[in-house]
Amino acid sequence: MLPISNRGGLMPESPIRKLAPLAEEAKKNGLTVFHLNIGQPDIATPPAMIEAVKNNISPVIEYSHSAGNESYRRKLVTYYARHSIDIKHTDIIVTTGASEAILFGFLGCLDVGDEVIIPEPFYANYYAFAVVAGIKVIPVSSSITDGFCLPAIEEIEAKITSRTKAVLICNPNNPTGYLYGKDELIQLENLVLKYNLYLFADEAYREFCYEGTHFSALQFEEASQHVILVDSISKRYSACGLRLGAIVTKNKLVIDTIMKFAQARLSPPYYAQVAAEASIDLPDDYFTVTKAEYKKRRDVLVQRLNAMPDVYCPNPGGAFYAMAKLPIDDCDKFCSWLLKDFSYKNATVMLAPGTGFYGTPGMGLQQVRLAYVLNTESIHAAMDCLEEALKVYPGKV
Amino acid sequence: MLPISNRGGLMPESPIRKLAPLAEEAKKNGLTVFHLNIGQPDIATPPAMIEAVKNNISPVIEYSHSAGNESYRRKLVTYYARHSIDIKHTDIIVTTGASEAILFGFLGCLDVGDEVIIPEPFYANYYAFAVVAGIKVIPVSSSITDGFCLPAIEEIEAKITSRTKAVLICNPNNPTGYLYGKDELIQLENLVLKYNLYLFADEAYREFCYEGTHFSALQFEEASQHVILVDSISKRYSACGLRLGAIVTKNKLVIDTIMKFAQARLSPPYYAQVAAEASIDLPDDYFTVTKAEYKKRRDVLVQRLNAMPDVYCPNPGGAFYAMAKLPIDDCDKFCSWLLKDFSYKNATVMLAPGTGFYGTPGMGLQQVRLAYVLNTESIHAAMDCLEEALKVYPGKV
Repeated sequence: MLPISNRGGLMPESPIRKLAPLAEEAKKNGLTVFHLNIGQPDIATPPAMIEAVKNNISPVIEYSHSAGNESYRRKLVTYYARHSIDIKHTDIIVTTGASEAILFGFLGCLDVGDEVIIPEPFYANYYAFAVVAGIKVIPVSSSITDGFCLPAIEEIEAKITSRTKAVLICNPNNPTGYLYGKDELIQLENLVLKYNLYLFADEAYREFCYEGTHFSALQFEEASQHVILVDSISKRYSACGLRLGAIVTKNKLVIDTIMKFAQARLSPPYYAQVAAEASIDLPDDYFTVTKAEYKKRRDVLVQRLNAMPDVYCPNPGGAFYAMAKLPIDDCDKFCSWLLKDFSYKNATVMLAPGTGFYGTPGMGLQQVRLAYVLNTESIHAAMDCLEEALKVYPGKV
Repeated sequence: MLPISNRGGLMPESPIRKLAPLAEEAKKNGLTVFHLNIGQPDIATPPAMIEAVKNNISPVIEYSHSAGNESYRRKLVTYYARHSIDIKHTDIIVTTGASEAILFGFLGCLDVGDEVIIPEPFYANYYAFAVVAGIKVIPVSSSITDGFCLPAIEEIEAKITSRTKAVLICNPNNPTGYLYGKDELIQLENLVLKYNLYLFADEAYREFCYEGTHFSALQFEEASQHVILVDSISKRYSACGLRLGAIVTKNKLVIDTIMKFAQARLSPPYYAQVAAEASIDLPDDYFTVTKAEYKKRRDVLVQRLNAMPDVYCPNPGGAFYAMAKLPIDDCDKFCSWLLKDFSYKNATVMLAPGTGFYGTPGMGLQQVRLAYVLNTESIHAAMDCLEEALKVYPGKV
């Protein structure tokens, strides 16, 4: 018997995807499954992006530059300028999704055994990429009763050790939907300056802010060398399958270092870059329409959740996720049970168990993440299922 | 000043790509640069693959299954069956290029500090992915005078320590073009059985064998649980930009482990899978034509090289690379000099310095890798440049 690696054993199963076999089984049994578990929107990818792919005439699908096509990076500069982010095309390395950007950031800035502090609940795959990079995630708990705002800066500061190299913030947040304000970002800026740390800023949901405006970490004046922006076009343009993201930093040493990791994997995907380049020319109202749709969905979801007995869901200011507290014994059991043992009007709902988004054992046991990526009719039907499920779930508390 | 990581410092620059700025400069100065440095063929990607992308009608470019679309994996089973490789679709995880397959293999089977034995010269990015995974590459030198055949099995055996977890073989080989025979593979099979090691088999160039036939490590009868096949469609279909590969193994524990790494990065690229699925239906003569073209190029390249004074190039049996020994002091200096200080008939040639393919310091100093990915006319012109360059290079020995 050949042993697998220890880190292979340590790798978590995705809380978003691990229940997929149960969902497939439920569908085989004839049930409709409302997928609120995964951030895969039903919104159409902008036709102009798909057209650009169809109009591509190159007879050879070649490697691109390891940092991504220069033409695309130059257009990205104009995209960021529209968001008051002032960068050059040489500050950008185009990546295979934000996934690769996070991994490259960890690999380039931290060594095995180093620590990154992340407010929890956090996007579960940060932990997975930390396992890959051999680094430690140090969680600082945010609270559902405070709407998942930034933990007190003293609490974050108390976690800093000699191995701490970075703080990571996702804004607006996945999984909570919390939109951090400029004041919270400035607190983090002062912290990374004081302790000479990197700040990883995952801003994949930048466009989707429903209350207040987005302040990017790349707008920092003093700590600009500390910021590693992680970005993605997956959610922005409902184009998750393209697998295209970027790492953006004004820190040239980091760019030069990450470029070596980028060269090793040769290049980001070709067609994704063709589609992405077309995205920069979309009309200004593209996001107006999309954002209005998500806001409508959020409003339905949050209203429905809070109308259920003993359910609490803070109103998320951005992204398209909400974390809700349910009157249940164990979210992992509950989410499995929804797929295996429950149906209502020949349907059920798939949710992501909250525990998978916490680094502290035992946290999030009564929480679930819901992605409002379906239309309001489906969200209503999914909430009907959830409401009914909470009446009959054997592990109700 | 924020420090980068030690591993960021350890990452090598790609020997294939690090001279790119010099080549860009040469082109700006009006020179034609013949790119024999990189395995980017000029052969057209099969139109049927490009058509499949254009005909795709899905309005949402969604995530796929983390292991790749089931429809594509099921078709891949028929592809492998045609190569006498008997696997199931659940033995396959579709990856973002062979690059990701290699990394996943290292991560899933080896821990930080573990060792993988690789005959050198080897594909430079194996070393890069070893740095990412924190593992050690233990090189065993093959010899240009033996045509880069497998080193004596006793030499490989002598490198095995308590930290050795795997042997890696690339067949046909990049960078040497050597095609390992069944007898050599069986020696490796016995070795991995005797010492309970994994065998990583990179067979990205399976179709391109000019002398003899290809024997896949997945055809092993006894050691089938030990074999991790690394594959790619980049070279097979001249589709490097798609970034699509696969990891194939009959070892279920390894598949289950690697699946967790695959889930963390969500999915392989969408359009690449659409194109790749169409590739399985290409007519049988697709490779006949392509292979004949590469063989013609190889013959020109090898004949021209060996006709130059003090140049030696063994005849490669497969892939589309050759390693040649040149009468020069230092291949890094020579390859830079070709781009910076030399031209012939307003052109020059870009080669990959041999040193970048060796793990043992000081090895390969007089060697270069040449990729015969250009048409014979261009290869002749490139060889004219090289021949002339060797007459006037100041570091000639």
